[in-house]
Amino acid sequence: MKVSQTFIPTLREVPADAVIVSHRLMFRAGLLRRLGNGLFAYLPLGLRSLRKVEQIIREEMNAIGSLEIKPSVIVPGELWKESGRWDSMGEALLRIKNRLGADFVVSPTAEEPFTALVRDELFSYRQLPLSLYQINTKYRDEIRPRYGVMRGREFMMKDAYSFHTNDESLDDHYKDMGKAYRKIFKRCGLSVIPVKADSGAMGGSGSEEFMVESDIGDNTLLLCKICDYSANVEKAECKVDFSPRLSIDVAKAVASSTPPFEKIITPEVKTIEELCAFLKTGAKTFIKTLIYKAVNVELELTDPAAPNAAPKTFDSVAFFAVCIRGDLDVNEVKLAALLKAADVSLASEADVERLTKAPLGFAGPVGLSGIPVIADFTVTSISDGVTGALAKDLHYKHVAYGRDFQALITADLRTVKAGDLCPLCGGELYEKKGNELGHIFKLGYKYSKSMNVTYLDENGKSHLPTMGCYGIGVDRTLASVIEEHNDEDGIIWPISVAPYHVIMVPIKYEGAVKEAADKLAAELEQKGIEVLLDDRDERPGVKFKDADLIGIPYRVVIGDKNLAGETPKVEVKHRAEKESSLVEQKNAAVVLIERIRKDLSLS
Amino acid sequence: MKVSQTFIPTLREVPADAVIVSHRLMFRAGLLRRLGNGLFAYLPLGLRSLRKVEQIIREEMNAIGSLEIKPSVIVPGELWKESGRWDSMGEALLRIKNRLGADFVVSPTAEEPFTALVRDELFSYRQLPLSLYQINTKYRDEIRPRYGVMRGREFMMKDAYSFHTNDESLDDHYKDMGKAYRKIFKRCGLSVIPVKADSGAMGGSGSEEFMVESDIGDNTLLLCKICDYSANVEKAECKVDFSPRLSIDVAKAVASSTPPFEKIITPEVKTIEELCAFLKTGAKTFIKTLIYKAVNVELELTDPAAPNAAPKTFDSVAFFAVCIRGDLDVNEVKLAALLKAADVSLASEADVERLTKAPLGFAGPVGLSGIPVIADFTVTSISDGVTGALAKDLHYKHVAYGRDFQALITADLRTVKAGDLCPLCGGELYEKKGNELGHIFKLGYKYSKSMNVTYLDENGKSHLPTMGCYGIGVDRTLASVIEEHNDEDGIIWPISVAPYHVIMVPIKYEGAVKEAADKLAAELEQKGIEVLLDDRDERPGVKFKDADLIGIPYRVVIGDKNLAGETPKVEVKHRAEKESSLVEQKNAAVVLIERIRKDLSLS
Repeated sequence: MKVSQTFIPTLREVPADAVIVSHRLMFRAGLLRRLGNGLFAYLPLGLRSLRKVEQIIREEMNAIGSLEIKPSVIVPGELWKESGRWDSMGEALLRIKNRLGADFVVSPTAEEPFTALVRDELFSYRQLPLSLYQINTKYRDEIRPRYGVMRGREFMMKDAYSFHTNDESLDDHYKDMGKAYRKIFKRCGLSVIPVKADSGAMGGSGSEEFMVESDIGDNTLLLCKICDYSANVEKAECKVDFSPRLSIDVAKAVASSTPPFEKIITPEVKTIEELCAFLKTGAKTFIKTLIYKAVNVELELTDPAAPNAAPKTFDSVAFFAVCIRGDLDVNEVKLAALLKAADVSLASEADVERLTKAPLGFAGPVGLSGIPVIADFTVTSISDGVTGALAKDLHYKHVAYGRDFQALITADLRTVKAGDLCPLCGGELYEKKGNELGHIFKLGYKYSKSMNVTYLDENGKSHLPTMGCYGIGVDRTLASVIEEHNDEDGIIWPISVAPYHVIMVPIKYEGAVKEAADKLAAELEQKGIEVLLDDRDERPGVKFKDADLIGIPYRVVIGDKNLAGETPKVEVKHRAEKESSLVEQKNAAVVLIERIRKDLSLS
Repeated sequence: MKVSQTFIPTLREVPADAVIVSHRLMFRAGLLRRLGNGLFAYLPLGLRSLRKVEQIIREEMNAIGSLEIKPSVIVPGELWKESGRWDSMGEALLRIKNRLGADFVVSPTAEEPFTALVRDELFSYRQLPLSLYQINTKYRDEIRPRYGVMRGREFMMKDAYSFHTNDESLDDHYKDMGKAYRKIFKRCGLSVIPVKADSGAMGGSGSEEFMVESDIGDNTLLLCKICDYSANVEKAECKVDFSPRLSIDVAKAVASSTPPFEKIITPEVKTIEELCAFLKTGAKTFIKTLIYKAVNVELELTDPAAPNAAPKTFDSVAFFAVCIRGDLDVNEVKLAALLKAADVSLASEADVERLTKAPLGFAGPVGLSGIPVIADFTVTSISDGVTGALAKDLHYKHVAYGRDFQALITADLRTVKAGDLCPLCGGELYEKKGNELGHIFKLGYKYSKSMNVTYLDENGKSHLPTMGCYGIGVDRTLASVIEEHNDEDGIIWPISVAPYHVIMVPIKYEGAVKEAADKLAAELEQKGIEVLLDDRDERPGVKFKDADLIGIPYRVVIGDKNLAGETPKVEVKHRAEKESSLVEQKNAAVVLIERIRKDLSLS
């Protein structure tokens, strides 16, 4: 392809709103243009790379037996009402009413149509397992789209959904997907961090996220300095350092030497920091107590052994007191998962005052009634602590877990942070920001149940299939490739997703140089090598700058001087290398084909 | 690919709402399923064929230098407001408001984003001509979607837009497109009828539609029995048979022997039919006069020679009396084009009574004042006609054009119908129903003007580029292939768009038969032949029925009996042929590869 015959509007300037390198380079290299906020058009060069990422994904999905289909992008709202997500999905779901008043959704994800399709066609266990995928347009109504296609409104996504008769079958496919994802990202030249992740609003248990490190990442990852433990902060655990998990009996025994708890007057002291200053002690002595409001709690809460287990039916809203060691924070994702709640959030000031019968800042577990107490494991080893006394300007000291209060549930609820210890090996954890490129989940029966999918087993008995779902953001993967492969001059494409393999730069496209360039391009193209030939009437400097900017792996410079010698030569340079080398003109095609085929075979 | 490992849910029964053969067969052969009204999911087999149609289109677009890009499907409403189509497009345009109150459109066509993209990047005449296309999801909010993907709401469309400095350049590309379209449809195995079409709401002049014959076609085509004239009824012309176009002077001369016009009492006679019966004569004697309401007329209407040319400014609505010979109908598309009106429709009864000062049924041009009269050419040669007399139960007879009334404009306004004469050769015209698969237009300056696209010429002077646009419905093309290639047993795919080239049917997939089938499949696949291997444990009859239904071009049956002989054989049959032939097993791969490569090379 000749540069003059395609459309590569490179820019010297950086678009004002492009704060990350992939966004800047996608615009500058003429891969992408903006149509609206979070809406983009891929130009010819960008589309070629996008399609290559798509094709890598497609090949790896096909290789593990997932079957490509293409549902519509606009999906009847009815299907989303069946699954319940029409209501639960939040406003990122773009809902449409058409001229006849019918409801539609612009798909942000596609559990519903896939489940509906399979429901209508599934009769027998012999049809399972079944894994289907699409690579298709999606839309999420981001309030603040930014970073180019890294967080756009419309995007391309590969999403797969699998259906199984049993957990083993789901496990197998889930593992195949995990392997396929690793291959896909490796082939794209990406270093991904697979992390255990909370599956959040998607429901279900068992999930893995594929992250790339990014300063503007949405996710905080915790990684071990010693072993390969990695987790999203939403679900990260850690080794409990100086606070062993104690049972009630052990806790009571430990507390035997603690003086009885007593009131202390703490005027104008509300926060942990103020209390530390007032009592001249560290935060680890305190039992921080937070009142949480939880929506649609599905956990059974009738443990007769726990004194606070009020025999109440939880309606849509329930309140909980959550105790944690004063230096730590509650991880609300862990709390929601523990309670099997749709959502948890701190209670309002009015609710706190009503439930603790005290102003904000004086909550504590001792003597608290009416709401269940949930304690982080760290609280179980506090045998001489300080806590709010459920009255203005009053705290208790010498409070002991097990003796002075108990919890309905004890659990790991802390937000792990850098410096905490790895739950596997005890090594120190550190933090990274990450962007999610892919995510695989075990969905379980959530959709087969809500959308009533059944099959008959060998004995004619009806069952629900268990499901998995598996997504990859295609645009985001492409942008991440650029984030990882660039320098100050532009993109450095991995050959697997480069828009072209070779860029040919004739110093001046005329005479013998033109002839040599055309001939070499033809030879390469005949062997399937993708060549971009810069035939423009521009100064060599301009062409070199553009070649570096758009980052085609191999650059071949053809000039009079090198052609003129006894053994005519051309100059070959890999984009990632500083130095070029001279290759005899008559061998150039063979040398390039060999190097490119080798590069391709490694990706 | 083994049948057991893919997903081809064939059906014996015909879906109740599937009234056309492609809809029936796409469901029965497991190519497609329904997600909602006018919304479908392509299953693996259907998607393979859809992608092949896409790829054929892509290759032919690339071959004429059009460049593929990918704008978003959801497009900012702002762009549609700029072009004016936010208001003018009607309710088939799905408009969305997102959670922030911003307006969006789900693209039904994409003049706006393409024009906006080019506007932002176009500086110099040296960048032109530029032709860009996409193959992407579109949506049209059909009130009554039906016939499967033939008239769905969501669909795939190839749409190209070109930008030129002058008409010659646009002409060249328009011709290239016309040739490319012919190739595309030919490669898909389709017989298309290219017809001159009115460009309707798209604006601009010069357009060609690519139609396939279809009982449920939206379009009526007129074709000549002798030459290759073809036209959409909306724009069809015909040779004026016994009614030459007369000038005023000639008409007056012809009328010299006609008695003066006189009133006749016609009680209870309103329609042409009633009048014919009452006067015992044929409809060709009558001058039918219809009152039309036209919106946004842009034609200058100040011909001083015409007595009815009232010097009025036409606001948004104007009325016209249109006269035509009694046996003919007015073609409203021609009328709108003549008046350069956004829309024309028959005036309401109240308007007719107000403007003709008579009840409905007694309009006529004689003595009519206040509104312009437009006459079809056929009226100019009526020198002794009958017409309404602008009063209840009264007509005039002996009316002569030129003598008793004149028209502001005379024009070709008739609706051509079967039996009329070809405007080119005078042969008889006949009608066909057709479905539009593609359409190429010269848009002219409509969008470059409204969206302010400019470039600088050699002298630094600013100009608007002239534009063309070129669409193909991808799903509709696929469905039309099935409409044209099927029999009572199922689809008969042309090899170019068949989901697989070969279906292998082992009589029983075990032992030597399994071995032979696997070996042949592997040999074929190694050479790039796409093989579907029916490994199911089903009776041969079931497998044969499914093979015929899904219509893979070559069927290879492998059975014990044919393998057992001295020279082991397999049975090869083309889907379109009745008889199979025996091929030596050892030659089977070579024979099939040769035949398939030959078939492919012809398409």
